[in-house]
Amino acid sequence: MTRYEQLAGAIRQQIEDDIWQVGDKLPSLRESVKSSGLSLMTVLQAYQLLESQGWIVARPQSGYYVATRLTQFAAAKGGKGLHLSENVEISASIFDVLQACKDPKIVPFGSAFPDPSLLNEPKLSKILASVARRFVPHSSLESLPPGNEKLRRNISRRYAAHGIHVSPEEIVITAGAMESLSFSLQSVTSPGDWVVIESPAFYGALQAIERLRLKAIAIKTDPRTGIDLDALEEIVQKYPIKACWLMSRFQNPLCNTMPSENKQRLVAILNSSHIALIEDDVYGELYFDQEPPMPIKAWDKENNFMHCSSFSKCLAPGYRVGWVAAGKHAGKIQQLQMMSTVSASAPTQLAVAEYLAHGGYDNHLRRLRRQLEQRQSQILRAISEYFPDSVKVNSARGGYFLWLEFEPPFNANRLYQLALAKGISIAPGSMFSTSSQFDHAFRLNTSFAWNDVQASAMKTLAGLCHTLLRECG
Amino acid sequence: MTRYEQLAGAIRQQIEDDIWQVGDKLPSLRESVKSSGLSLMTVLQAYQLLESQGWIVARPQSGYYVATRLTQFAAAKGGKGLHLSENVEISASIFDVLQACKDPKIVPFGSAFPDPSLLNEPKLSKILASVARRFVPHSSLESLPPGNEKLRRNISRRYAAHGIHVSPEEIVITAGAMESLSFSLQSVTSPGDWVVIESPAFYGALQAIERLRLKAIAIKTDPRTGIDLDALEEIVQKYPIKACWLMSRFQNPLCNTMPSENKQRLVAILNSSHIALIEDDVYGELYFDQEPPMPIKAWDKENNFMHCSSFSKCLAPGYRVGWVAAGKHAGKIQQLQMMSTVSASAPTQLAVAEYLAHGGYDNHLRRLRRQLEQRQSQILRAISEYFPDSVKVNSARGGYFLWLEFEPPFNANRLYQLALAKGISIAPGSMFSTSSQFDHAFRLNTSFAWNDVQASAMKTLAGLCHTLLRECG
Repeated sequence: MTRYEQLAGAIRQQIEDDIWQVGDKLPSLRESVKSSGLSLMTVLQAYQLLESQGWIVARPQSGYYVATRLTQFAAAKGGKGLHLSENVEISASIFDVLQACKDPKIVPFGSAFPDPSLLNEPKLSKILASVARRFVPHSSLESLPPGNEKLRRNISRRYAAHGIHVSPEEIVITAGAMESLSFSLQSVTSPGDWVVIESPAFYGALQAIERLRLKAIAIKTDPRTGIDLDALEEIVQKYPIKACWLMSRFQNPLCNTMPSENKQRLVAILNSSHIALIEDDVYGELYFDQEPPMPIKAWDKENNFMHCSSFSKCLAPGYRVGWVAAGKHAGKIQQLQMMSTVSASAPTQLAVAEYLAHGGYDNHLRRLRRQLEQRQSQILRAISEYFPDSVKVNSARGGYFLWLEFEPPFNANRLYQLALAKGISIAPGSMFSTSSQFDHAFRLNTSFAWNDVQASAMKTLAGLCHTLLRECG
Repeated sequence: MTRYEQLAGAIRQQIEDDIWQVGDKLPSLRESVKSSGLSLMTVLQAYQLLESQGWIVARPQSGYYVATRLTQFAAAKGGKGLHLSENVEISASIFDVLQACKDPKIVPFGSAFPDPSLLNEPKLSKILASVARRFVPHSSLESLPPGNEKLRRNISRRYAAHGIHVSPEEIVITAGAMESLSFSLQSVTSPGDWVVIESPAFYGALQAIERLRLKAIAIKTDPRTGIDLDALEEIVQKYPIKACWLMSRFQNPLCNTMPSENKQRLVAILNSSHIALIEDDVYGELYFDQEPPMPIKAWDKENNFMHCSSFSKCLAPGYRVGWVAAGKHAGKIQQLQMMSTVSASAPTQLAVAEYLAHGGYDNHLRRLRRQLEQRQSQILRAISEYFPDSVKVNSARGGYFLWLEFEPPFNANRLYQLALAKGISIAPGSMFSTSSQFDHAFRLNTSFAWNDVQASAMKTLAGLCHTLLRECG
């Protein structure tokens, strides 16, 4: 990290800690130079970075102020927001939202996928071409469950680089993270079993639960600290919970990351009741700071946590290569796989294995993280500029989602309809819950390049929000 | 078909129709020349072909006789063999059998896969390499459900070539036939629903039923004529059957093909009760005769039949590209796919699409069929030569499986264990049923090249059968 980034980080932390509150004037550049011992240029760069990220605003002839328009969520206090569901049913309208994102004429703020052009990695294409030329049907045998050995070894090494011990033997290669998650859930449950999920949660979790006929308890997830652990502790006393499915890093849709101490407390709660963890970590590589937060899998001492991820959000969306570090459940998961998709595509497994070994994945990731950070800043700035003041925005130091809320009775389902009619998609909050408690919220994808079309779409969206708020009175 | 093949086909038909029975002396070469008007060389070739296929044997200084050792199954008479199962449970030992087939040191008579070297198609590898070079992440959007359009159009054309109308709109590309089948079953059932399957049946069907918590009625399938239609007719009167899952061409494990008139009667029974058909047709392209038998989908007038297949058994086992021609269920199946594996691998979809358009798939298939036919002949000859006389063999004019039975209490599970200890795998009959009614039978894979190792393995297997029969008394 450069000096100006360090300074910006420190000030951001102060804002988050309420040392500087919304509307406060920050120390002047001169004062900051004095207190920090840094050059004027460095301090200026830090302030500009914070401005670009929407944390502060410059007022001409006056100075820098903590931005008023982007109210960060305060930590939720009390109110467990527990939602009991004995029969999860998700509307087919999710499918409509996803289909809308495929249409190139629609501005894809609702998309779950990152901008494909960000993932363009010619080296990977070259490696796939070279793998393809050498590929004979016999090569496919090596890709049968648990999957290509070289690939599993390389994934294992990436864990090791962060001090996490995951043996290649517990890794199963799958046709993407969604499949990893589905096998993981299936490997530890039977129909009628209770599982814990977050609220709001990735709709894939809700669908998997519906498909497997499980009973779900959705526990309120705080936009800053993650799943409510007090509530979880109570729940595991009362219900025979079999598994807990959650995202600890850049959660979808909130984009929050659980603090380390919460992760450790979660581990203790789960282990004391022998509950399996299914950790969806598809955005884990997309952190903006120097060091990533750790996945919960890092604290797995009983081999009972299944850590699911893929290359779809960072490298190769169409390749359909994912994995699960499945601990003691790896064998069962291989059986499930043999009876459903047999294996992930063999040529793409081989190509990713080769690329991880020699392709420069970490360079690609560094570039990607930087671009995602810049694009997030631009969208945050546009929100700050165009959106009604009452919007609450949850942004994070990673991922490519923003979670926006207005006060009820603001209705994001209606916003979705109105926006779609104008060629803009959003992901309404209702997609992420079986209840209507997130109908006033929506998720925006910040990964696409900022241009006139995006700018105009953000203005249009802001205009629609103004209209809807007026209708609410 | 050459003249000698025509003559051989005619004689084979006469044997199947019991015009010539086991042990009968066939007309001499000279008599045959006279009656057929063909040359001596042509008649000799025909007899040699039949001999190579195990239908007849030459006795020195005497002539050709109908082979005694390969008792073909007679059509089953009476006895519906109905097996009711309210809670299907399949042993994890299936997984062990499949794993054993991965070990290159084990002779793979138990394998479900064709010999990979048969599928070697350098043109496909070249096309994948060329697709890979041009592949950018954006290309993956075209592969989202329902799947690559060019691929769907080309599959549609292949149906049309056999006079079957399947619109590209009803085709969904999947990560292999197993996934197609699983989505198909899921799209028309809820847990607790009744479905009809065959007995014996592909273990994938049994597993899918277990996973989806369905109740299955397994109806006896005749080694020559397929599922017992009288029994089916009775069942659909008594039970609220939602779906019928079967294979009408080169069934796994029996390798039988339903006669056309049976297919039509089946269609009438299903339509009259509005029962969806799930037709597993992964071996449909592997016919040995000039023209293929038709899939049941050819008679689908109500868009209620789901025809599932893939390229895994004919072209590209590791690519994981399959499809379902799903009629009115195509939309629902796309939804299920979005929530499980999202899509089949995009580069391999594109490569298969390109290959179907320009690669010469039909030439490859013709070569493949011829090789499979030759290899089947060699295994049949070895059975005829080494196996106990009491073996019954069901062979077919297609596919790469043989179904062998001895009289109970012969135990094929024990044969499996003994053979595995000697480095040979077989697929015991118990894999294909939830009951023990096929414990005296097993399936052999005939697709591998005949060589000393195979010859010696067949002798060993035959020896074990002799031993087990002696033990039975």
